[in-house]
Amino acid sequence: MQTTSVKAFGTTAPEADLAPLSINRRAVQPNDVEIEILYCGVCHSDLHTARNDWGGSIYPAVPGHEIVGKITAVGSAVSKFKVGDLAGVGCIVDSCKTCSSCQQDLEQYCLNGFTGTYNGQDLQLGGQTFGGYSEKVVVKEDFVLAVPANLDLAAVAPLLCAGITTWSPLKHWNVKEGSKVAVIGLGGLGHMAIKLAKGLGADVTLFSRTPDKTEDAKALGADHVVISTDEAQMKAVRGQFDVIIDTVPYVHDVNPYVATLNINGTLVLVGYLGGLEPILNTVPMILGRKSVAGSVIGGIAETQEMLDFCGEKGIVSEIEIIKMQEINTAYERMLKSDVRYRFVIDMASLKNS
Amino acid sequence: MQTTSVKAFGTTAPEADLAPLSINRRAVQPNDVEIEILYCGVCHSDLHTARNDWGGSIYPAVPGHEIVGKITAVGSAVSKFKVGDLAGVGCIVDSCKTCSSCQQDLEQYCLNGFTGTYNGQDLQLGGQTFGGYSEKVVVKEDFVLAVPANLDLAAVAPLLCAGITTWSPLKHWNVKEGSKVAVIGLGGLGHMAIKLAKGLGADVTLFSRTPDKTEDAKALGADHVVISTDEAQMKAVRGQFDVIIDTVPYVHDVNPYVATLNINGTLVLVGYLGGLEPILNTVPMILGRKSVAGSVIGGIAETQEMLDFCGEKGIVSEIEIIKMQEINTAYERMLKSDVRYRFVIDMASLKNS
Ligand SMILES: [Zn+2]
Ligand SMILES: [Zn+2]
Ligand SMILES: [Zn+2]
Ligand SMILES: [Zn+2]
Repeated sequence: MQTTSVKAFGTTAPEADLAPLSINRRAVQPNDVEIEILYCGVCHSDLHTARNDWGGSIYPAVPGHEIVGKITAVGSAVSKFKVGDLAGVGCIVDSCKTCSSCQQDLEQYCLNGFTGTYNGQDLQLGGQTFGGYSEKVVVKEDFVLAVPANLDLAAVAPLLCAGITTWSPLKHWNVKEGSKVAVIGLGGLGHMAIKLAKGLGADVTLFSRTPDKTEDAKALGADHVVISTDEAQMKAVRGQFDVIIDTVPYVHDVNPYVATLNINGTLVLVGYLGGLEPILNTVPMILGRKSVAGSVIGGIAETQEMLDFCGEKGIVSEIEIIKMQEINTAYERMLKSDVRYRFVIDMASLKNS
Repeated sequence: MQTTSVKAFGTTAPEADLAPLSINRRAVQPNDVEIEILYCGVCHSDLHTARNDWGGSIYPAVPGHEIVGKITAVGSAVSKFKVGDLAGVGCIVDSCKTCSSCQQDLEQYCLNGFTGTYNGQDLQLGGQTFGGYSEKVVVKEDFVLAVPANLDLAAVAPLLCAGITTWSPLKHWNVKEGSKVAVIGLGGLGHMAIKLAKGLGADVTLFSRTPDKTEDAKALGADHVVISTDEAQMKAVRGQFDVIIDTVPYVHDVNPYVATLNINGTLVLVGYLGGLEPILNTVPMILGRKSVAGSVIGGIAETQEMLDFCGEKGIVSEIEIIKMQEINTAYERMLKSDVRYRFVIDMASLKNS
């Protein structure tokens, strides 16, 4: 298969800084779309993959799965896109299409494993997939999203991961007009959960450990802020919420939040992969038919639904634009939660480097 | 309020055996139904309440919340029942009727606390409520169930607690023709879960720690038995089940069962009130959108629905009939799981004592 070399930014080892490098993109195949990347959001997964925090990173690693840009070429069999269209690519660039999950548009739960946008197994070229910290990407039409033209393009990028990760559980657990939704944690995921839940018509509460995020949360659309370290405030919201989106990425006690679920309520973990410590108490779950669940990103059809919804409602991420060359500093700032609320790389900075 | 003294069997202290005693039943009020109790099932809760295992027991304690009998009197405002009808009473004899749970027919989750059939707060007479180990009971019409005439009456009794406790989660989590359901534990609850899931058209698997229950489980309707201590068998059912009804009443590791849930699957705890140890791992929950949930008994309308369903399908509990005077021995046998699968007291034995 023919390839083209394109400029990218990535790392060759867990300890190394990200730096310029070259990667190959395949020639456009009949079902492929080629996208000139204009902006790429910076997700915590990017950092963890670059540094091999979860194990399994393959080097060189080129992160980036919140990709937006302009279509520069389409294959002969492509029907949904044309050259010049705005397009997005999220966390998934391929899946088996035949398993029961894929057949239900749940590519994120593909039983044969979806192909991640980076650090996945490239089934066309072999080796690993390379993400959006690059000039161009070539992706199968079925995994390319249409981007509404009325939105700030840079601020759309984080919808492709942070947005869909919170949208999918909100929809799956049936959040709608009048639902009572709480969000734990105000970062990249949390701020999108607030905006999207609010967009769906829910009454939205942010749980925060400190009062200093109150003003921001309300500006983002939260109706209420509950300080989770304040027992009286926690008691006042017992039995209130239909759905809680828990975006906290480290181990934490979920029991105090389960207490704030309404009968039939569900707490959905989207940020923390690990053991629930302290141990989960089943008593309130049994006596109130409450659930603790998990959810990961979202399917392609659902991502398109979310983008269309955001276009209608004018919802985008809150972002800080950086140059590609500032990525290492950005990672350091992310580790200190010093970002409101998502870094987005202006990819012109890579092209012009 | 006028009362009548009736014979009962109960205990006056946690350490005492159950023995004959007298209790008062209120005179039939306009909305009341008086039932001559013919059979009463023996639930583990009976034993735990008699012995104050959970704290909060009030003495004298008269257990029994799997009550079936014949109506001997009805109040002037009663419209659904008449003298001579078969009737049942389960775990709930009153609730506020005004909270959001009650208004959704979820009396079991009454936000003001439902009145338990025994050891509850008797809102009419004051003091505690007394259960079905007695000659008669007087219950508000709205909490009385109609019992299908075609079923073995003694074997209907356990449907009122063991039956509805498993029916409610099967229905809530949408078990239907073709669903894949697993049941953990083959006791009073587990054997009903198998029969009811099978009745709903599910493909039913029993998880058992030892092979000695295989024949029984299949006779009850289980399609498959998986020995949970056999790693190869557990691996063979990974990702299989839509719903797991976990009836185990003591602390146990749920992680191996979560692994056997399908995408979107739910494990429902109905037997174990306490902390989940070893700790629950969120990774498979997040990567497979799986839930861990709890459920307790069921509402009145749902209990009627189940009884009607059992009438249609000819489903009853497997029982061993005992005399009232054998209750203390029966409790000892229950503690050794020496019962297939529910003791039911022939209440004629009390009347004739
Ligand atoms: Zn991401
Ligand atoms: Zn698949
Ligand atoms: Zn019971
Ligand atoms: Zn109520």
